[in-house]
Amino acid sequence: MKISALDVHDVRFPTSRRLDGSDAMNPDPDYSAAYVVLRTDSGAEGHGFCFTIGRGNELCTAAIEAYAPLVVGQDLDLADLGEFARRLAHDSQLRWLGPEKGVVHMAAAALVNAAFDLAGRVAGVPVWRLLSDMTPDQVVDLADWRYLTDALTPDEARDLLTAARGGRAEREAALLATGYPAYTTTPGWLGYTDDKLTRLSLEAVADGFTQIKLKVGGDLDDDIRRMRLAREAVGPDVRIAVDANQRWDVTQAIEWVRALQPYEPWWIEEPTSPDDVLGHAAIRAGVRPVRVATGEHVANRVVFKQLLQAEAIDVLQLDACRVAGVTENVAILLLAAKYGVPVCPHAGGVGLCELVQHLAMFDYLAVSGSTEDRVIEYVDHLHEHFTDPVRIAAGRYLAPTAPGMSAEIRPESRAEYAYPDGPVWRS
Amino acid sequence: MKISALDVHDVRFPTSRRLDGSDAMNPDPDYSAAYVVLRTDSGAEGHGFCFTIGRGNELCTAAIEAYAPLVVGQDLDLADLGEFARRLAHDSQLRWLGPEKGVVHMAAAALVNAAFDLAGRVAGVPVWRLLSDMTPDQVVDLADWRYLTDALTPDEARDLLTAARGGRAEREAALLATGYPAYTTTPGWLGYTDDKLTRLSLEAVADGFTQIKLKVGGDLDDDIRRMRLAREAVGPDVRIAVDANQRWDVTQAIEWVRALQPYEPWWIEEPTSPDDVLGHAAIRAGVRPVRVATGEHVANRVVFKQLLQAEAIDVLQLDACRVAGVTENVAILLLAAKYGVPVCPHAGGVGLCELVQHLAMFDYLAVSGSTEDRVIEYVDHLHEHFTDPVRIAAGRYLAPTAPGMSAEIRPESRAEYAYPDGPVWRS
Repeated sequence: MKISALDVHDVRFPTSRRLDGSDAMNPDPDYSAAYVVLRTDSGAEGHGFCFTIGRGNELCTAAIEAYAPLVVGQDLDLADLGEFARRLAHDSQLRWLGPEKGVVHMAAAALVNAAFDLAGRVAGVPVWRLLSDMTPDQVVDLADWRYLTDALTPDEARDLLTAARGGRAEREAALLATGYPAYTTTPGWLGYTDDKLTRLSLEAVADGFTQIKLKVGGDLDDDIRRMRLAREAVGPDVRIAVDANQRWDVTQAIEWVRALQPYEPWWIEEPTSPDDVLGHAAIRAGVRPVRVATGEHVANRVVFKQLLQAEAIDVLQLDACRVAGVTENVAILLLAAKYGVPVCPHAGGVGLCELVQHLAMFDYLAVSGSTEDRVIEYVDHLHEHFTDPVRIAAGRYLAPTAPGMSAEIRPESRAEYAYPDGPVWRS
Repeated sequence: MKISALDVHDVRFPTSRRLDGSDAMNPDPDYSAAYVVLRTDSGAEGHGFCFTIGRGNELCTAAIEAYAPLVVGQDLDLADLGEFARRLAHDSQLRWLGPEKGVVHMAAAALVNAAFDLAGRVAGVPVWRLLSDMTPDQVVDLADWRYLTDALTPDEARDLLTAARGGRAEREAALLATGYPAYTTTPGWLGYTDDKLTRLSLEAVADGFTQIKLKVGGDLDDDIRRMRLAREAVGPDVRIAVDANQRWDVTQAIEWVRALQPYEPWWIEEPTSPDDVLGHAAIRAGVRPVRVATGEHVANRVVFKQLLQAEAIDVLQLDACRVAGVTENVAILLLAAKYGVPVCPHAGGVGLCELVQHLAMFDYLAVSGSTEDRVIEYVDHLHEHFTDPVRIAAGRYLAPTAPGMSAEIRPESRAEYAYPDGPVWRS
């Protein structure tokens, strides 16, 4: 199969108009996708994107176009998508702009995810099944092992995947019957009033969620009050995670979390810079028993490797589009399994829920083999724009059944929200 | 003073045609600058750029343009350039694309460096003097302290700067008389023949250099032979640094460096991923007494902070354009001084020698107060395109005297090498 063209779209939703998605670092995000359709000479196509919060989305679309010479007119071997991903990551001139981080890496994510969407469509299966049906050797070949072997070797990964084959049929039956556990961030945006926080927290419990999340880090007194209101609303048994979106230095993070401790936060998410491995380790030691979580802004597998080596996190929050897509996330899932740290994917944004469910379900079936202390983030925004939106029931993600990676934004939505010339932005 | 416009230029030199700049990770770089002229209503202007190796330079120019709404039409207080830098770094929507790394951060470097070039021109002094003449309070106000305070507080930095005022006049006299020590990478590019390596090594010693650098990491037998030839050429007293450009995993790095040890490499530079703080610490422990150096691809001050906290490096190689310019490099110099690690700036590329000399001379006069084990990289490429090129004598950088940051590329060169429409690229 040859890749014949890349169609690139700048799609932006004006979410800042209602303060959906507001947090201590990101007061006015316009949730956006740098979106690509990978077209092939077979007629089959794959959809992928990376997620931004508005300004600069055009840099990600431009970066996707910068990869075009490595992709368009080239063969794509659907049985060797690791090679495809490495071709993008190892281009020396584009690598200079990272390496393997920031705009170029996010653009690679869009392309790699599109290639998996394509592979799922061609095989007629959802990507969680495509991945789970691979042999251990095939899975190992997806990852880029460069810089990982001091923590995990391909042989160790193969052993781990082989061991995880036991009980697979039972887990798949359970997944198809009841889905994968979720938690919801819907109640907790920083821009919401106390009444809205309480109302949405109650609704979350009524909807079957066993964990919610609150944004914190703006003002300590506000956070204490909001945390108390949320705890009163959900009762003692529902977990409440808190998320500071990188707002603090190390010492401040420890003090702030300790002040919230009477209301039993389940984890503190992004307490500080996502680059600060040692800082997270210090915070983790300082806030026990509150767990430390991070990942949505962690640049690549090398930083995740160190977060695990340094015992800096209790919860690893992979992101579908920040690292270079499915292949790098396979490496990250394998690292997390080796170190015994549960993966709770970051989602929300535009279509992140749609993408990460495939990775979490693959993890359950073929890597960690467990859903214990594992939950996928859920936010109730923007799903209506997808052709295969996530389905939530009783606080759980139901396994998608359509072929591909659930990555396709409806053509009408792509036109309506096209930036800067779509009707939503012209008005 | 108001910023009235940004003129942005994509300037690329076809260096790959002669294998200048070739190394184990970057076989065919086309040294390039994403270049900006910051125009003001006063008529004064500032020049700045970030450095790339070709493809993707257009992403950095686009990122500079993405910052335009934060800059054009806005006041610029030359006495508070820390505020200017933080305005760029803290824009939440653009920050999402890093945070503080990759394309957006490199573009911020171009703008911040241009602001300092402007400030130097307005004050009528070179930037090394502009910085060195600031009070400790003024220097402290340049840095963005977010994420640093667990390693260094503003108060500690102020004390350190105050202590460094002793002996300043003597050091300035010495700097003006004999310049700042340099080392040369000119002999050691991986694409050069053995004869060229030997000839250029001999020339370097004859030119007064006391340290040269060789690229390694392609093939071990080749590296052993080249290291032996270089050692035979320069004799036992000239230092030979080696540079792997991120080619290795941790274990491989240790083995490879040990194999070169009979020829006494002075430091091993970029043995592995620039993100791998813990990996560098392991390599350092494994290759003693060979020193470990890194920095040209280190994304930001948070990663440098950890390299110092983890005692992972012996030599800190700041880069003028990878982190967000002068202000972030001031923070990095202060961190290095606190931890007692010498700074040996990365240079070469396009105009990096021109920029970093100002930072190293500021460090000598006002921060570390020392040139012991400190050398600025020198590569003899592309200086002819600058209006105020570096001057090297007896293996040392002479202090620049022209106002500004030596950042201006001649207008003729900007036109000649404009990409893709300049004469060099059209032909």
